[in-house]
Amino acid sequence: MNIEMINDAQQRLTGHVRVTPLLTSPFIDKIAGRRVFLKAEALQHTGSFKFRGGWSAVSTLSAAERQAGVIAYSSGNHAQGVAAAARAFETRAVIVMPKDAPQLKIDNTRALGAEVVLYDRVHENREEIGQKLAKDEGLTLIRPYDQPQVIAGQGTCGLEIAQQAADQGVNARDVLVCCGGGGLTSGVALALEENAPHLRARPVEPVGFDDVSRSLASGEICSNDALTGSLCDAIVTPAPGAITFPIMQRLCGPGIVVPDADCLRAMAVAFTRLKLVLEPGGAIALAAALYHGSQIEGADVIVVASGGNVDSAVFQTALTQYGNS
Amino acid sequence: MNIEMINDAQQRLTGHVRVTPLLTSPFIDKIAGRRVFLKAEALQHTGSFKFRGGWSAVSTLSAAERQAGVIAYSSGNHAQGVAAAARAFETRAVIVMPKDAPQLKIDNTRALGAEVVLYDRVHENREEIGQKLAKDEGLTLIRPYDQPQVIAGQGTCGLEIAQQAADQGVNARDVLVCCGGGGLTSGVALALEENAPHLRARPVEPVGFDDVSRSLASGEICSNDALTGSLCDAIVTPAPGAITFPIMQRLCGPGIVVPDADCLRAMAVAFTRLKLVLEPGGAIALAAALYHGSQIEGADVIVVASGGNVDSAVFQTALTQYGNS
Repeated sequence: MNIEMINDAQQRLTGHVRVTPLLTSPFIDKIAGRRVFLKAEALQHTGSFKFRGGWSAVSTLSAAERQAGVIAYSSGNHAQGVAAAARAFETRAVIVMPKDAPQLKIDNTRALGAEVVLYDRVHENREEIGQKLAKDEGLTLIRPYDQPQVIAGQGTCGLEIAQQAADQGVNARDVLVCCGGGGLTSGVALALEENAPHLRARPVEPVGFDDVSRSLASGEICSNDALTGSLCDAIVTPAPGAITFPIMQRLCGPGIVVPDADCLRAMAVAFTRLKLVLEPGGAIALAAALYHGSQIEGADVIVVASGGNVDSAVFQTALTQYGNS
Repeated sequence: MNIEMINDAQQRLTGHVRVTPLLTSPFIDKIAGRRVFLKAEALQHTGSFKFRGGWSAVSTLSAAERQAGVIAYSSGNHAQGVAAAARAFETRAVIVMPKDAPQLKIDNTRALGAEVVLYDRVHENREEIGQKLAKDEGLTLIRPYDQPQVIAGQGTCGLEIAQQAADQGVNARDVLVCCGGGGLTSGVALALEENAPHLRARPVEPVGFDDVSRSLASGEICSNDALTGSLCDAIVTPAPGAITFPIMQRLCGPGIVVPDADCLRAMAVAFTRLKLVLEPGGAIALAAALYHGSQIEGADVIVVASGGNVDSAVFQTALTQYGNS
């Protein structure tokens, strides 16, 4: 896993990925107490950065692999990213999703042409299901984060950040990244190491699901006690990956841990101030910048808003509680 | 009023205006029955295209005019555009706003440093109030649409559309534009005439407030009977302007008239499919593409989503009624 793979992924993604804008608002700067630059990955195809990794992985398959099809397990954003990429390459996609994933994500994945297999997040193991199906049907498994070509795709978001930060004169030290298994965080970290070494990626996680933060602090891979119970469904994962963790350990600053309520409040702020729809897990880095600024270094801060695939009911909860924030 | 003024405005705006993306969704294409390319001006600074016209006008003031200050009347988006531009040029801004404007727009205008004067939309005339204040306090009036440098600023949105449509291989005939007094519509029309003559601007208006559509059909300036009663507050204006109407008459295709309910539905679609927050008047061109496609010509269509400054209560109404659409 290295920077050349990210550069190669960017070449394959050019003309297919959306270069998402780096957005600002004077109102957000005022709340945060510093300038905030938000990388709007919710505007990416399929509503999250996962399209990058999905496309990167599918586009490197051999002709035979492409003909047989791919399989992925995902709470929804990786599912849609892989499904959209597979459709573009006319490849069969089977997606293993938890029964309690947001209905919107399940519906969208099906609408993008994928076959959806539902499982029980508590009693079944998605990796086992995925590996069995892959073996039985000759499908290539595209892991949600612990796979080099997936990390390479997510890293292209970091290449864009490095370029846009330079163009816009951003004077930041920290790039806050919504973090599940660390695919986006490690990919961004590698891209910054090469292209903007004054910036460092920092994972942001929900309270109770701070496996990466604890792993970075202890120097050893730690797991979460639970696998459900956060609004941030997109970034609840069991533990950092075997590939992603060493990268994060080498390059990332300490993690920041944020309660769900702050994510809802940040969603209301993004609604009012940026006209951007974020899902709870996609708003957690913004929430860290807005409400946990004492943990951040630098005059400015960059936050990656990773996705916007949220059921309208959850979005309405954020607006009911926090209105025009 | 000519294309050179728009080109000059673009030069003044470079580095200050946000080049907003042209967004797409396969789900939206399916509803519309053709490819839809949405110009996301809700992502513009201050949440609407009005920042373009405000900046264009303020940036051409003489030093003496800049020192004395500016005045504008607006239901809210022009107010914020002028206020933000005036603040950047360290100029006093007085804004005359209707008492029933969305609270968010009034609050934002004040927060951007402007002095807000409220008036009664039914019993008072905003032009008279504006002209009296301008005279008494030596302020330069920046009209919301019927002023050349304002139209020139809005026209820069058309320059971007021409470029982006070429880059993305758009095969459209119609560019649907949310239309109040015609500042954006006429500016876009002029930009397209020069840079993409195969495209034509078409105004989209709310049922009951279709002054421009009727004026284009009859060849004479027609007024609306009422000045309140649509959710699309941003585009309820008494009549097309003396400058904007001849431009629209020469260059625009026929108007499209859309009921408020379709705007709410289009807001829900933009929420779900593009992760974009639109206000009712900012969603009306998308609504025309989604639900009035029989009136549109061309394999593809471009819609300008002009703004996203919506109170959370109105947005929740759209989500409650149409959910994840």
